[in-house]
Amino acid sequence: MLNLLLADSELELVPREHWSHPCVVVNAKKRGKKPSQVLLDSTIHHPLFRDPFEKSRRGRPDIVHQFLLMGLDSLLNVEGGLRLWVHTRNNELIVVSPETRLPKNYARYQGLFEELLVSGAVPSRSKPLLELLPDHDMGKVLNRIGADRTILMHDQGEKLDLLEVFSGMVGEAALCVIGGFSVGDLMSKVPCDLRVSLHPDQLKVWTVEMEVLCSYRRAFRGSHASEGP
Amino acid sequence: MLNLLLADSELELVPREHWSHPCVVVNAKKRGKKPSQVLLDSTIHHPLFRDPFEKSRRGRPDIVHQFLLMGLDSLLNVEGGLRLWVHTRNNELIVVSPETRLPKNYARYQGLFEELLVSGAVPSRSKPLLELLPDHDMGKVLNRIGADRTILMHDQGEKLDLLEVFSGMVGEAALCVIGGFSVGDLMSKVPCDLRVSLHPDQLKVWTVEMEVLCSYRRAFRGSHASEGP
Repeated sequence: MLNLLLADSELELVPREHWSHPCVVVNAKKRGKKPSQVLLDSTIHHPLFRDPFEKSRRGRPDIVHQFLLMGLDSLLNVEGGLRLWVHTRNNELIVVSPETRLPKNYARYQGLFEELLVSGAVPSRSKPLLELLPDHDMGKVLNRIGADRTILMHDQGEKLDLLEVFSGMVGEAALCVIGGFSVGDLMSKVPCDLRVSLHPDQLKVWTVEMEVLCSYRRAFRGSHASEGP
Repeated sequence: MLNLLLADSELELVPREHWSHPCVVVNAKKRGKKPSQVLLDSTIHHPLFRDPFEKSRRGRPDIVHQFLLMGLDSLLNVEGGLRLWVHTRNNELIVVSPETRLPKNYARYQGLFEELLVSGAVPSRSKPLLELLPDHDMGKVLNRIGADRTILMHDQGEKLDLLEVFSGMVGEAALCVIGGFSVGDLMSKVPCDLRVSLHPDQLKVWTVEMEVLCSYRRAFRGSHASEGP
């Protein structure tokens, strides 16, 4: 079983201090929402941040969308070998049921995640497919996942073949961590057994994710992949 | 070099006979567009089709977006080993430069592809990154790509390990074809050397694509993947 965690992902509601900014008010009104119920989205809310680093980093719910779509639809998940987790910049942990059917359409995804961040669970508290747990810093997240071995994907890690890395982990509950942002580094400290780099440059989350998903599945199917019905 | 073709993709402008439908007029006005310049999108335009099969199949530009994002950002493309092509239900062929930087945001992608379908090239005719060639049925598309060997991904194909399939193709220009729709089968006849299935069920385009991209890259890097700087 592979646990795949998106860490420090840039997923948040518009922060309170920006609720009255024109770009927030106009967009929220257009969508029939209160400013407090809207996902921060860099495409819409780029005027909010003056600091160039914050401007280029914050408000990327699309990364979470892409991460979940690829993970939930992957062969590894279809075959029951994957558990997805999303940790946010505000230390929330989203627990994702493997049965979740995520909207492909971005606007619908946006609506669903706004509901999740406001209410704490979707579609309902009693039978949630996505559940948001507050107050989960990285230590608490790692405790909750409880993996035997943690691999951190990082451009400054060791250049290793993921197939070989995973092949050495038979019988272990593995956790693989990918940073959920487009620029900069992890804000959380992630204690890990190994840091693995696939390329000297910083890659997109989906680039790393597809390599992890396909390599892990191959490591545990090996040469049996061409057998069976 | 791998050529990866999305065939019969459900990418089209709103057809002329629907330009005056309220769901088209209202949405186009909201976006400041003419009805003739808007991508057909099932989320918006579902009232247009009465036939349940058409309703569930047509208007899926999001599949093309996902296909291109994953392909362009893949390690195979970063390393210069990939050429992406998109064929549409209306027999247009989109030639994609490997240097294209696609908008991650869906609304921006939508605007770019509306421009492409209206004008035939973006960002400009003289130096296009994306070029749309009309009158390209599947025969003409395959001629233009000119591959030595064509692999069609299909749920009714042979259950084979893609790594083994690609490993037997050293020195050949390969073409791999994935259907660019969510339900039903190919409308175009695709002559091929081999039909490969990864799973008895019909998988998502991105599920198949990540397996193709990762397996092809592994086949041609093999055990060298952990060497080098």
